[in-house]
Amino acid sequence: MLVVMRCGATDRQIQGVVQAITELGCEARQLHSAQGTTVNVVGNDERIDSARLASLDGVQDIIHLSQPYQQASRDWHPVDTVITLPNGLKIGSDAIAIAAGPCSVEGEQQILEVAHAVQEAGATLLRGGAFKPRTSPHSFQGLGARALEYLARAGEATGLAVVTEAVDPETVDAVAEHSDIVQIGARNMQNFSLLKRIGRIKNPVLLKRGIAATITELLSSAEYILMEGNANVILCERGIRSFDPGTRNLLDLSAIPRIQQASHLPVMVDPSHGTGIRDLVTPMALAAIAAGVDGVMVEVHPDPDEALSDGVQSLYPEQFAEMVRRAQQVASAVGRRIASPAPAKLGS
Amino acid sequence: MLVVMRCGATDRQIQGVVQAITELGCEARQLHSAQGTTVNVVGNDERIDSARLASLDGVQDIIHLSQPYQQASRDWHPVDTVITLPNGLKIGSDAIAIAAGPCSVEGEQQILEVAHAVQEAGATLLRGGAFKPRTSPHSFQGLGARALEYLARAGEATGLAVVTEAVDPETVDAVAEHSDIVQIGARNMQNFSLLKRIGRIKNPVLLKRGIAATITELLSSAEYILMEGNANVILCERGIRSFDPGTRNLLDLSAIPRIQQASHLPVMVDPSHGTGIRDLVTPMALAAIAAGVDGVMVEVHPDPDEALSDGVQSLYPEQFAEMVRRAQQVASAVGRRIASPAPAKLGS
Amino acid sequence: MLVVMRCGATDRQIQGVVQAITELGCEARQLHSAQGTTVNVVGNDERIDSARLASLDGVQDIIHLSQPYQQASRDWHPVDTVITLPNGLKIGSDAIAIAAGPCSVEGEQQILEVAHAVQEAGATLLRGGAFKPRTSPHSFQGLGARALEYLARAGEATGLAVVTEAVDPETVDAVAEHSDIVQIGARNMQNFSLLKRIGRIKNPVLLKRGIAATITELLSSAEYILMEGNANVILCERGIRSFDPGTRNLLDLSAIPRIQQASHLPVMVDPSHGTGIRDLVTPMALAAIAAGVDGVMVEVHPDPDEALSDGVQSLYPEQFAEMVRRAQQVASAVGRRIASPAPAKLGS
Amino acid sequence: MLVVMRCGATDRQIQGVVQAITELGCEARQLHSAQGTTVNVVGNDERIDSARLASLDGVQDIIHLSQPYQQASRDWHPVDTVITLPNGLKIGSDAIAIAAGPCSVEGEQQILEVAHAVQEAGATLLRGGAFKPRTSPHSFQGLGARALEYLARAGEATGLAVVTEAVDPETVDAVAEHSDIVQIGARNMQNFSLLKRIGRIKNPVLLKRGIAATITELLSSAEYILMEGNANVILCERGIRSFDPGTRNLLDLSAIPRIQQASHLPVMVDPSHGTGIRDLVTPMALAAIAAGVDGVMVEVHPDPDEALSDGVQSLYPEQFAEMVRRAQQVASAVGRRIASPAPAKLGS
Repeated sequence: MLVVMRCGATDRQIQGVVQAITELGCEARQLHSAQGTTVNVVGNDERIDSARLASLDGVQDIIHLSQPYQQASRDWHPVDTVITLPNGLKIGSDAIAIAAGPCSVEGEQQILEVAHAVQEAGATLLRGGAFKPRTSPHSFQGLGARALEYLARAGEATGLAVVTEAVDPETVDAVAEHSDIVQIGARNMQNFSLLKRIGRIKNPVLLKRGIAATITELLSSAEYILMEGNANVILCERGIRSFDPGTRNLLDLSAIPRIQQASHLPVMVDPSHGTGIRDLVTPMALAAIAAGVDGVMVEVHPDPDEALSDGVQSLYPEQFAEMVRRAQQVASAVGRRIASPAPAKLGS
Repeated sequence: MLVVMRCGATDRQIQGVVQAITELGCEARQLHSAQGTTVNVVGNDERIDSARLASLDGVQDIIHLSQPYQQASRDWHPVDTVITLPNGLKIGSDAIAIAAGPCSVEGEQQILEVAHAVQEAGATLLRGGAFKPRTSPHSFQGLGARALEYLARAGEATGLAVVTEAVDPETVDAVAEHSDIVQIGARNMQNFSLLKRIGRIKNPVLLKRGIAATITELLSSAEYILMEGNANVILCERGIRSFDPGTRNLLDLSAIPRIQQASHLPVMVDPSHGTGIRDLVTPMALAAIAAGVDGVMVEVHPDPDEALSDGVQSLYPEQFAEMVRRAQQVASAVGRRIASPAPAKLGS
Repeated sequence: MLVVMRCGATDRQIQGVVQAITELGCEARQLHSAQGTTVNVVGNDERIDSARLASLDGVQDIIHLSQPYQQASRDWHPVDTVITLPNGLKIGSDAIAIAAGPCSVEGEQQILEVAHAVQEAGATLLRGGAFKPRTSPHSFQGLGARALEYLARAGEATGLAVVTEAVDPETVDAVAEHSDIVQIGARNMQNFSLLKRIGRIKNPVLLKRGIAATITELLSSAEYILMEGNANVILCERGIRSFDPGTRNLLDLSAIPRIQQASHLPVMVDPSHGTGIRDLVTPMALAAIAAGVDGVMVEVHPDPDEALSDGVQSLYPEQFAEMVRRAQQVASAVGRRIASPAPAKLGS
Repeated sequence: MLVVMRCGATDRQIQGVVQAITELGCEARQLHSAQGTTVNVVGNDERIDSARLASLDGVQDIIHLSQPYQQASRDWHPVDTVITLPNGLKIGSDAIAIAAGPCSVEGEQQILEVAHAVQEAGATLLRGGAFKPRTSPHSFQGLGARALEYLARAGEATGLAVVTEAVDPETVDAVAEHSDIVQIGARNMQNFSLLKRIGRIKNPVLLKRGIAATITELLSSAEYILMEGNANVILCERGIRSFDPGTRNLLDLSAIPRIQQASHLPVMVDPSHGTGIRDLVTPMALAAIAAGVDGVMVEVHPDPDEALSDGVQSLYPEQFAEMVRRAQQVASAVGRRIASPAPAKLGS
């Protein structure tokens, strides 16, 4: 339940509402936006008599939420959110971001080499896993903190913004410090404690869709982050579970227009995890762009056959360069463009 | 199991192989292609001692099938199949076919009106259901034979090729006579009796993917048609079952490159049934083209709100015209073009 | 839409309603039951002004269907349907039917041997495929008409009722003549032409749930059969598609109480196809009985490793006998019993 | 990769292996069990030359894991794990545990009342959520720490063992202190940080299957807990995602025998979340028992219509009592029994 305050409501009026909600046994959370002040009733609001709140001073309206999310909704925020990164990249603008890199950071030399290759080919974001959530505890779990440093240096050397995954509250700060965008992986999409923790950092967040999450559930998870004050959430379709064993996951490209109708947040697509098959990555990337996506994230590895994780779905650097060339054509056909990479730093 | 005859094998040698197979309790079926003659062992071939056949005169090789299909496979027929329709449209060529029309034919005036509208907007194929397979026997089942005549007249008047569905063996001939392409719907994808019957007509066939069929199963169903001698099969992705109630079906665009890798047959996409939501049709159509599809089939209705079936997913004629304009841009970006409609007949 | 006639409505009043419906462009179908006469409006009833019909003589009520089925509904027919077979077996009673036999009939000796084995172990129904719908045209398709005769003789020799599948309209009569129950397989659950044809025979029908069909769709398919006049439909859960490759299908036992709540028709379960794994058959059969099923259908083969189809999921005869013993315990625990087999014929 | 040491291998030999693994860039983890000592190679073991380790002193064998889990496997630990709780309940024995209680703890009086009701009806475990992971941040999130105390008191008053969910590392200790079994919910099944943290407490763990997790993934998640030293893991099937909107989730009872074949760990079933429909709970509970489950967990609420969460799937206390009565019959039919509750404390 939302208590919408009148335009120009005084602090005392707002405090009156907060106090009434607290007395009724719920938590009151204030939201200040361009639309004015709203007091969010958190908790068991079904039992609150809304008439009791509607009659308070300064209250304009009581809104019963028809969706499990509100701040993530386009009804609440009709204008597209555009997220600006330190390297100037604007995600959600007419320029489509390309993120590329290996599934896992395997060493300083490896990530630096890939970073230069993808930067030259047209990427504006460098991806690479430092902490890897793996199905089996016997699988390679990532290089951890060391990889964060390698990533940061590779980003600095190339002008690429860095995106990498945080897997638990303990390492959120380290990940946030060394990256431009913090990723929440599919397995943690409903790890609500982690979402709340992420909602309190400054970095933009790339929130991946859970492997069997509906779009409504994805937006509800985004809401957990937004409600903590972090407005810069990018949603990412990365394939869902299906019955056909022919692909690792089933990439749901209809998620792109569906998210854009329901929400103001930018949306990216990961065709590498979304298909699990190298030869499907480029066609699906082009399709995503034609469908209106704001960014594409792909795995590129200098030697996929030797990759420690997910090699079979990684593009070779020259395949990636070809993908970007074709992506530019398709972007232009739908009235957009591929974001230009920053020029690589001297001496890097 | 396939018995591949040597190049230049004599009829007597071939008959010797056929006889041996028959004696072993299986059926022998001869296939003559540019690659030479092959004798297909139909039935329980696991129990046949292949050495027994390999030693016969004129036999070059014995192939144990690793896939449940063979003639549908690109291994068997490496070159893309291109299907030429009476109106000159070549499906599977660089020109992408656009099929449009109402879900159901509701009257002669309606189908003629839609036919003209979609022809002018850029369609080359007219779709419309005469026989409708409906989940409930209490739902509208189509106008039947009457609708076939209306469709044929609308096709003649506009130069559009006509595609419509056959739902049982009894009406196959009537459907074949009044249409250019005979459609097999998703519910009948594994109605093997119907597939065999369809394999014996001359018309090209549009075979829709079942609602929970794998790509392997789709190609195996195509094999039933091909084995009866009808080589002109077009496959159609039309959405599969998923867990997210937000769309009617989940359109699987990765089916496009997957089919193209596995098979030489052309592939179309139906984003209307594939999503069930009007606003998703155009983005998904553009995405399909970027992914490499050979044709797009959409529902267009002059007044979707009044449609007898599936109105909520039908485009308005002006939306369709806009879709075609955008499709031309995307097709061009991936090195293809939208097939040009024949000029409408005089006086129509 | 249903027009419910008053109790004691005259033929003239009924004809008046039929005529009005016909004039409005729809088809009228009369249903006579213990509840009185109802006239069913088939076709596009959304456009009919129900007030026009409500004012006619003899009309008691107009019912807008909230479900896509009606005769299959428990609302329409509150009492459980019990189906009596020639051998005295009553499906839907307190006695649970056990159907057993090979996936495919492979020869007269084989089916006779299995029939005796399963009869002695406690089966009351003999199952076996004569016409096999197979994913690939290159797979064994069944012995056809010959197998029907073998089945009928095995049924006669053992007193077992025979259930076997019909796959197309052409062979329905032959199947009906040689069997007690005609099965419609999962792939044909929405082959509406076949359903209508089956609705015009006298034999009870075993309708299997499609591989991705909802319970509502299953009941709607049953409605096609019921509407043609065949009231003896048994529904069968046989596993649905899921994402876990660990089993061939996912057996949905919640289908049992769901069907029983929604419908008066008996329900069976096929744990052999439903799991595809021999060791899961018995636990799932026992679970189905605990959940309230009216019958269990399992594959039994004298030598599963040599079976022409689906051997990996067939029980050995001694496993089947053990399953029946345990099933008797569980049936008794839920207040039911396993139906007793007829004594085998002398000299058989 | 596992390095199995010879029976009687010395500490020095073991240290030699550990050192070699470390030098090769991986982590060595020692496991001591009745079978002897094994050194587990964690991390990127694909690049290690196993011959290098096989030749070391005291090494008996090198095992390449064919499954992503090992300690959870029945191959590794052939005997069933039986977990003994403070109130004497042995989970995994012939006595089937019944856990019951509300979805959420809503107050001290409520939980005490339910505890007495379910104890009298035959439950041996009290369930109730203190921390609730909810899809929407606007939904009731549980009473938190307060609820833990209410639960502990209700457990003490009734002799019921308490099971409740931990949702993040911060609250694990508080949950562990106030409960007998710590639950990990479906949404956190692949929250690997939480799993590792849970692996370091002493309490038994109830690990719920993720909403789209395969059995292999469930066992791999259990492996994360086992590898940290907590051997007392109970697995719980609670319904998976499917395409039929008729139930909230699809309860997969084949998971019971599948888990029992693959693993030595006990398995429970939650038919309340697994179906989401009150009337399906009892039939599914009985079916689970017939299929061989070690425990059943159901929601019981004194007034389901007023419940703050999931009321529609909660049993009324008298329905629960009837369920237990029927469960006793079915358990007895499969050679087991329902665990007897401890007598309620005097004066409680």
